[in-house]
Amino acid sequence: MQLLRLGELGHERPAVRTDDGSIFDLSSITPDIDGTFLAQNGIARARAGVESDSLPVVDTEGVRIGAPIARPGKVVCVGLNYSDHAAESGLDVPTEPVIFMKAPNTVVGPNDEVLIPRGSTKTDWEVELGVVVGQTGRYLESPEAAAEIIAGYVVSHDVSEREFQLERGGTWDKGKSCETFNPIGPWLVPADEVPDAGKLRLRLWVNGQLRQDGNTENLIFGIGHIVWYLSQFMVLEPGDVINTGTPAGVAMGMAGQPYLRAGDVVELEIDGLGKQRQQLAQA
Amino acid sequence: MQLLRLGELGHERPAVRTDDGSIFDLSSITPDIDGTFLAQNGIARARAGVESDSLPVVDTEGVRIGAPIARPGKVVCVGLNYSDHAAESGLDVPTEPVIFMKAPNTVVGPNDEVLIPRGSTKTDWEVELGVVVGQTGRYLESPEAAAEIIAGYVVSHDVSEREFQLERGGTWDKGKSCETFNPIGPWLVPADEVPDAGKLRLRLWVNGQLRQDGNTENLIFGIGHIVWYLSQFMVLEPGDVINTGTPAGVAMGMAGQPYLRAGDVVELEIDGLGKQRQQLAQA
Repeated sequence: MQLLRLGELGHERPAVRTDDGSIFDLSSITPDIDGTFLAQNGIARARAGVESDSLPVVDTEGVRIGAPIARPGKVVCVGLNYSDHAAESGLDVPTEPVIFMKAPNTVVGPNDEVLIPRGSTKTDWEVELGVVVGQTGRYLESPEAAAEIIAGYVVSHDVSEREFQLERGGTWDKGKSCETFNPIGPWLVPADEVPDAGKLRLRLWVNGQLRQDGNTENLIFGIGHIVWYLSQFMVLEPGDVINTGTPAGVAMGMAGQPYLRAGDVVELEIDGLGKQRQQLAQA
Repeated sequence: MQLLRLGELGHERPAVRTDDGSIFDLSSITPDIDGTFLAQNGIARARAGVESDSLPVVDTEGVRIGAPIARPGKVVCVGLNYSDHAAESGLDVPTEPVIFMKAPNTVVGPNDEVLIPRGSTKTDWEVELGVVVGQTGRYLESPEAAAEIIAGYVVSHDVSEREFQLERGGTWDKGKSCETFNPIGPWLVPADEVPDAGKLRLRLWVNGQLRQDGNTENLIFGIGHIVWYLSQFMVLEPGDVINTGTPAGVAMGMAGQPYLRAGDVVELEIDGLGKQRQQLAQA
């Protein structure tokens, strides 16, 4: 079972997808897939709805897929969390997690247009495993305790502008928060339906060419560690999204640095979590 | 006229304060003081409500003052924006604005307890002028155009943990997003009732001793410049808060670095924007 949101931006309706690909409307169970839904046992209620055979089928023909979670209270990101990506960035492997944030209004649907910011020449891609928080996390006792507050997992595209991030002074946030810079989805897979989130293959293609091919087993700081660590510095809340880092293969690290241009097509996939496809356009 | 929110955290009710200190309930005009209210001409509607003499008086005896704006979509901050503070931090004056973010769930009321994070030994203070965004801002044409999207101004306390910010790797966000780290208020003063936001005295006291005494006329990047600049990198939205930077006088820059401890009392004031008072406690 996967959770998703269908409809125009800002007017998405909640839905559930079963393993045979059928999609059912969840509006009778919740007005949205958000922090409140997740905190109030929403995944179990959705599952019960599916099992009751009472949910109406949704006609998805021509319908936009939104991000599978309503706008998060925050989007927290881990940087340099794969050793091959740290190396290609010319940076040391960190001794503890590197943290930065994306503005929550960067979140868009998995197949929405991604905009190259005005003045940008270095818009880059980053496929990442996204963690969706389901319960409040505050000073968690251990990385093992993190499992209790994770609702599920998503494909997340941490679009990045390298000049804004690294050459314009200050922290990375400036190159991470541009409009449309965080496609998420297509769906939220409940944590208990992901056999091992620490062993998922992530791939990203640009114009059909494979550029990133990593696996979460190579995360420097694993998922439980990240969630536990973050909870020592901030209060995690239901509906928050954590982007766990990207493996090697970004434009910045490639010969010729082939940054994204209007018209380019980026596709992302994480095994078991679905696929994204975005066309680039000029802002 | 000032806008404020009264009641327990998460259950605040909107109110308006007139220049003679009277406070009236605004619930008949809006359910909350948030981005929607500001974007839909809320300040003018509140003003009309006051002029109609029809709003009920609120008994404020023993009532908590909340942040004067509902939880923002984002809190964006400008670092090192007073030359004296850059100098005491041992850092160069930036050539363009230094940007970082605070998690929006750090926002609390002006007199709420501020928590020293577990493991912290370097919790520091920073009085700042906060800008509240009233309209969407995307690629603004000029610093002058910024005035059109500013709803008003607030006192903002950008509480900071210096070890987390500067000594734990990564960007500053780690030391800026701890629980209770952004008291805001007591009220939101509409932009048209602030004669010159570029000439406001800011002061902060710790246990009665004056520690910061600055003036927004010494901002390196002025308010219009900051708002215009940010709009080139992200979409500003109604209800967002921008913390514009702090003048000299923080603990990090003082002899002996007298960081905050449980029991300390911090008071903040910006001329015309009101006063805050927080007692520190251990998280």
